[in-house]
Amino acid sequence: MKALPPNEEHIDEDMLKIEVNLDDISGEVLGYVMDLLFASGANDVYYSPIYMKKNRPGILLQILCSLQKLGEMKEILFRETTTLGIRYYPLTVHRLERKFREVETEWGIVKVKEGILQGQIVQSAPEYEDCKKIAMQHQVPLKKVYEQVWRNGEVSN
Amino acid sequence: MKALPPNEEHIDEDMLKIEVNLDDISGEVLGYVMDLLFASGANDVYYSPIYMKKNRPGILLQILCSLQKLGEMKEILFRETTTLGIRYYPLTVHRLERKFREVETEWGIVKVKEGILQGQIVQSAPEYEDCKKIAMQHQVPLKKVYEQVWRNGEVSN
Amino acid sequence: MKALPPNEEHIDEDMLKIEVNLDDISGEVLGYVMDLLFASGANDVYYSPIYMKKNRPGILLQILCSLQKLGEMKEILFRETTTLGIRYYPLTVHRLERKFREVETEWGIVKVKEGILQGQIVQSAPEYEDCKKIAMQHQVPLKKVYEQVWRNGEVSN
Amino acid sequence: MKALPPNEEHIDEDMLKIEVNLDDISGEVLGYVMDLLFASGANDVYYSPIYMKKNRPGILLQILCSLQKLGEMKEILFRETTTLGIRYYPLTVHRLERKFREVETEWGIVKVKEGILQGQIVQSAPEYEDCKKIAMQHQVPLKKVYEQVWRNGEVSN
Amino acid sequence: MKALPPNEEHIDEDMLKIEVNLDDISGEVLGYVMDLLFASGANDVYYSPIYMKKNRPGILLQILCSLQKLGEMKEILFRETTTLGIRYYPLTVHRLERKFREVETEWGIVKVKEGILQGQIVQSAPEYEDCKKIAMQHQVPLKKVYEQVWRNGEVSN
Amino acid sequence: MKALPPNEEHIDEDMLKIEVNLDDISGEVLGYVMDLLFASGANDVYYSPIYMKKNRPGILLQILCSLQKLGEMKEILFRETTTLGIRYYPLTVHRLERKFREVETEWGIVKVKEGILQGQIVQSAPEYEDCKKIAMQHQVPLKKVYEQVWRNGEVSN
Repeated sequence: MKALPPNEEHIDEDMLKIEVNLDDISGEVLGYVMDLLFASGANDVYYSPIYMKKNRPGILLQILCSLQKLGEMKEILFRETTTLGIRYYPLTVHRLERKFREVETEWGIVKVKEGILQGQIVQSAPEYEDCKKIAMQHQVPLKKVYEQVWRNGEVSN
Repeated sequence: MKALPPNEEHIDEDMLKIEVNLDDISGEVLGYVMDLLFASGANDVYYSPIYMKKNRPGILLQILCSLQKLGEMKEILFRETTTLGIRYYPLTVHRLERKFREVETEWGIVKVKEGILQGQIVQSAPEYEDCKKIAMQHQVPLKKVYEQVWRNGEVSN
Repeated sequence: MKALPPNEEHIDEDMLKIEVNLDDISGEVLGYVMDLLFASGANDVYYSPIYMKKNRPGILLQILCSLQKLGEMKEILFRETTTLGIRYYPLTVHRLERKFREVETEWGIVKVKEGILQGQIVQSAPEYEDCKKIAMQHQVPLKKVYEQVWRNGEVSN
Repeated sequence: MKALPPNEEHIDEDMLKIEVNLDDISGEVLGYVMDLLFASGANDVYYSPIYMKKNRPGILLQILCSLQKLGEMKEILFRETTTLGIRYYPLTVHRLERKFREVETEWGIVKVKEGILQGQIVQSAPEYEDCKKIAMQHQVPLKKVYEQVWRNGEVSN
Repeated sequence: MKALPPNEEHIDEDMLKIEVNLDDISGEVLGYVMDLLFASGANDVYYSPIYMKKNRPGILLQILCSLQKLGEMKEILFRETTTLGIRYYPLTVHRLERKFREVETEWGIVKVKEGILQGQIVQSAPEYEDCKKIAMQHQVPLKKVYEQVWRNGEVSN
Repeated sequence: MKALPPNEEHIDEDMLKIEVNLDDISGEVLGYVMDLLFASGANDVYYSPIYMKKNRPGILLQILCSLQKLGEMKEILFRETTTLGIRYYPLTVHRLERKFREVETEWGIVKVKEGILQGQIVQSAPEYEDCKKIAMQHQVPLKKVYEQVWRNGEVSN
């Protein structure tokens, strides 16, 4: 394991994708399992609809996680889903440098996450949770909050 | 109910679409339910993947059937799936006249279903079950069977 | 409007489906909009992936709600999404009678929702939120909680 | 037919949804059919993935169009796809008032389409084709073009 | 190749995923190809809906199989589908120990497949084909058969 | 890099799959990005619908490209989409030998692309762009053009 400062641009060679095909579990349980996998340190979890044998609408569960999380992820999958097998393979991840800055809106401050590629800002995204909180508290459409952050938060780039 | 000869071009005003959203049933059971609904007289049954609340990958079950099948379809859905409610609405179906003819291939005869719009053949499709039987019996790629039917079955249209 | 006791089996003729196609909004905002629509009285809200013009992966938003909720749902859709048009059509819903009973497990009581068709129990489902709470508190797999409810909750039917 | 000025907010009662299930046609042809349907006056055309009988991944084609386009749409569907039946049902559409204004960017002018609900601007979207043209001509990321339009185009609302 | 007793818990390093993107073949043929691939020894076969260029709704075919099946799978794909290229990559599979036991129901015996993780039963699933046979023979809802198996088959675990 | 004649049957070991999960970008922009990636040398680009956290309907973007295109693809993804990370892994591609021949139709010549496996023609597909051009110019259904090419282009195989 490299001890990289996590917010610096870097190439991570210690990542895995884990996959499970599921045709004998309900969506209700899968909604729960997604939360559990995130809470246990998965970098990302997502479902895709798949067509399985015998006319079965199935679900492909995918997890992105670091190599050292493999054991824990497997444990959760075997205990919480109905699978008898789990597959996985390594992958490389190129991550941008991340920085946060603050932007003022008429309803309060919103954090903006920036993605930096070789020193140049290429991404700039208002934090969803900050915007959501404002939208709910001030009864404003969420898209209006985003729009004001974009307007007030111009980067002199 | 109009007593139309079923193979004539016609507009059917007595059709329904039935829909059920499902998030607490497995794909395994749904594969079974599809067969059952077809066997009980549904004109068509199909599933779509849907995104439901609480991160649940769900399934939208849809049935096309005639008005007089409504009771029977409901009965199956309530008994075989987990739903507490079934919704439906009427629709109109414009159906082409249908005719069958036979086409010879090197492996035997294949029926071809034709769709006729105001007297003109607009569809012409080899019957899947005939082609499949040949493909399996003669160990030929299924697409080769279709191709030969298209070649040998030219319509002087 | 019929003033039906809501838990009795009945046919509801005052329901609507509302639909919107979206290709210029992010999934982030749509996750938020779903919660808002439920909080404002939609009976159900769900998304389907659709293929739109110019190679755009789009989303079809669907809402099931009662006729008298139409105005409120439209207002939310116009203010929170990016759509310029909203379509809708009436539908009929057949709903089962609903009853609740309680089942004991080693970790506490779980409510079970029953669906009753013409006096006969056809559905019997442990309440998700009860099971989830137990699973998290007692660190048990969610599926084990469901299983125990099914075992202990046998209906002499 | 009401002779409404098309850009005023209105409720349109003369709209239809047309649907076709397809399991014996290729995606290649469907990409072509979508363009043709738009060119012939469909208001919208979109595809959804569906699970059909015999393990077939199928496609549900949907068209939104005005009542008087029904004949033309049917003709195209019967001639260009492989279907033997077409279904449809009426729907109501609530459309916002639409206005256009122009916003200056460092690369030129971009039209912005506004959606107006009871006199209040609720939608405001840069025209995709204008932004795309600039992005390609000036080798700028498309998202940068949108961002500048949002910044420069603030509405004193 | 390791000569592992196939029902013991193990890590299999000799597995492959094979993938093909398809936009010029019908769902009808794909339903057939799935059966053929299973019959020829694929461990799993499944389809996902994908959005391809030129507005084409396409299908991603995926196969999981052992390394020594690669040649045979390729042969089928090249002969039966329309693809000009096949891609694949290795993956690791962790499989649980599998055991079968029998459970009595009022309609006869059903096999239950158990998945065992380090000596502990974590999965326990009634065999679909057994349950289906009972459901059809005795005209019982399939879910009732599953429910009775779960009730009667309690494991003293 | 091997300097293989590109049209010969071969196994390519220098291919990559690149993946990005997206939940904060619109379908409109993604339609544009697909074109851009193709124009910059991607072998294939396609989208899949995925279910992401917080009820978000997201999109999985996938690219197939050669190893030496990795840098360029990353650059486009970081500049044009909203992602902060890009993942990738190597894969092997088995490509058929490709040949073109010409087939005459009543409306002009159409190229047919053949795929050849160990000297045997296994694929034979009319070029879409040729067929489309004829269909539009001569106002013929596209499927009729394909059919005539199949009929006139029989291979003495």
